Amino acid sequence: MRADEVDYVSGRTRLYGIVGDPIVQVRSPEMITAELRSRDRDAILVPLHVAPEAFDATIAGLMALRNLDGLVFTIPYKARALPLAQEIGEQAKAVGAINALGRGADGLWRGEIFDGLGCIEAFRRRGLALRGKRIQLIGAGGAGAAIAVALAHEGPRAVRLTELDAKRGATVAAKMRAIDASIDVTLAPASTDGVDVLMNASPVGMLDDARLPLDVARLPRELVVFDAIVKPETTPLVALAESCGCTVVRGREMMRGQIARMVDFFLSGTLAA
Amino acid sequence: MRADEVDYVSGRTRLYGIVGDPIVQVRSPEMITAELRSRDRDAILVPLHVAPEAFDATIAGLMALRNLDGLVFTIPYKARALPLAQEIGEQAKAVGAINALGRGADGLWRGEIFDGLGCIEAFRRRGLALRGKRIQLIGAGGAGAAIAVALAHEGPRAVRLTELDAKRGATVAAKMRAIDASIDVTLAPASTDGVDVLMNASPVGMLDDARLPLDVARLPRELVVFDAIVKPETTPLVALAESCGCTVVRGREMMRGQIARMVDFFLSGTLAA
Repeated sequence: MRADEVDYVSGRTRLYGIVGDPIVQVRSPEMITAELRSRDRDAILVPLHVAPEAFDATIAGLMALRNLDGLVFTIPYKARALPLAQEIGEQAKAVGAINALGRGADGLWRGEIFDGLGCIEAFRRRGLALRGKRIQLIGAGGAGAAIAVALAHEGPRAVRLTELDAKRGATVAAKMRAIDASIDVTLAPASTDGVDVLMNASPVGMLDDARLPLDVARLPRELVVFDAIVKPETTPLVALAESCGCTVVRGREMMRGQIARMVDFFLSGTLAA
Repeated sequence: MRADEVDYVSGRTRLYGIVGDPIVQVRSPEMITAELRSRDRDAILVPLHVAPEAFDATIAGLMALRNLDGLVFTIPYKARALPLAQEIGEQAKAVGAINALGRGADGLWRGEIFDGLGCIEAFRRRGLALRGKRIQLIGAGGAGAAIAVALAHEGPRAVRLTELDAKRGATVAAKMRAIDASIDVTLAPASTDGVDVLMNASPVGMLDDARLPLDVARLPRELVVFDAIVKPETTPLVALAESCGCTVVRGREMMRGQIARMVDFFLSGTLAA
C-alpha cells in the first residue's frame, strides 16, 4: 500500500449491502465486513439508504451489479424483500420476511431471516435457558416475528405477545402455535407479571427515543431482559434493567450470533436444511 | 474499534462508486477513498460492475440511494453517462463525456470530466509551464480528447495532434481552436521536431505492449515527456525518456491530479467557473 491508497477496497473487492430507511444506526457494515475479512474474503458490506418509493427500482438495479453478492434488509424492508428471493428458507417462510438475500454459485437468489436465530444463539452463548420459561415479547414486526418463530422452536411454557397491530399479533401468535401447540400464547398488553424473560423487539428506545417499551417503574431483579436494539447499546430499557440488577442480553449479542450464521449463508450460497 | 468490527465503514459512511465494465482493473477505490479520508470524510468509493444492458436501470437505482453522493464513470461509460447530469461542466461540454457525477447540496446532479484537468494539474504541481509551449499530443480518444480540451485553456503556442481516426482528430482539433483561436493546431504524424512537450494519450505502451507511440530512437534531453498510461508505470516511452535525461511526467501523477480535482468537485457539489 502507498500513502495515497487505502488497503481495504479495490476494483476486485466483492460487495454486500445493508438496505434500510433510516440507515445511520445499522451496525452490519463494520461487523459483517469484519466477519468476511476474518474468513479471508476481499469483500465489504456498505450501507444503502433506500427510500420506500425507490425500493423496487433500486433493489433491482443493485441485484444487477455483477460484483454484488448479497443484501441484508433492515427496517422497514424485511417483509417487502421476501418476493426478491427465488428460494426461501424455513425461518423466512414462517415469518413471511427475509433479512438476507444471497446469490448462489448457480445465480439463484436465496432468502432467509436470521434475526430470530441470532437471538436464540445469544441466549445459548450466555447459558440462559428458554425452554419451560414464561416470556413477554414486545413487538411482532420484522424482528419480533422472527424471534417469535425461532422462540417457538425452543419450547417455552408461555409467551405473552404484545403488538399494537392486532392482526399482525394474531398472525404471529398463530404461527407460534402451529410450530408448538403446547405453548400458551396470549396477546395482551406488556407486563412483567408472571414473566421470566422480557424481550423487546419493538423500535421503542431506538436512537434518541427516551421511552420504555412498557409502562413500569422497576423490574424484578430475577428477570432476564433482552433488547433487540443495537443503537444505542444501552437503551432506556437496558439502563433500567441494569439498575435493577437484572441479567441483560443486548442487541449486540443477538447481532453477533446472527452475523456468523448470515455470513455462512452468504459464502455458501445455500440454505440450511 | 472492537475486534469484531472494522473501522473504515459504518452506517454513517457516505458512498461513492466507480461504474465500469470490466471493473477489476480500476484504481479509484483505493485512491479516491484515500483522498476522501485525507480530508476527514467518513466516505468510501466502491467498485460497481455494471453490464451494458443493465446500465440505465442500475444507475437510476444508484442515484436514488440517499447516502450516495457521487459516481465515477470509466470504460465504456463516459459518453453514455453525460445525459445523467442536470448541469454539465465546461470540460464535459467540449469533450461530450463525463467521468464524474456529483450531487450538490441543492440535490442537483452535476457532471464534469477530469481526465484533462488531471494532466494540467500534474504539470502545475511539477512547476512545468504549458503556456506558450509547442506540444505534440498523440491520441485523441477519450483521454486524449479530454487532455486536448484542457490544454487548449492553458494557452500553448502550438499543438501538433496525431490521431489515426482522421474524423476524430479533426473534431478534437476544431474544439481546441474554438476554445482558443490563437493556438496553431495541426493534424500530423507524431514527431519531436520543434516540440517542447511530448504527450502520449494513446494506448500504445500499455500493459505488455513494447512499442513506442512514435518512431524515434532518441529524445532531446530538453523535451518534457508525459505518458497518460498508468499500467505499467514505466512504459517504453517513459523508459526511453528517462534514459535520454528528459523530464518525465507519469500517468500516475495525472491520476493524482485528477483525483484531487474530482474530490474537490464531489465535496463542493459545484462546477468550477
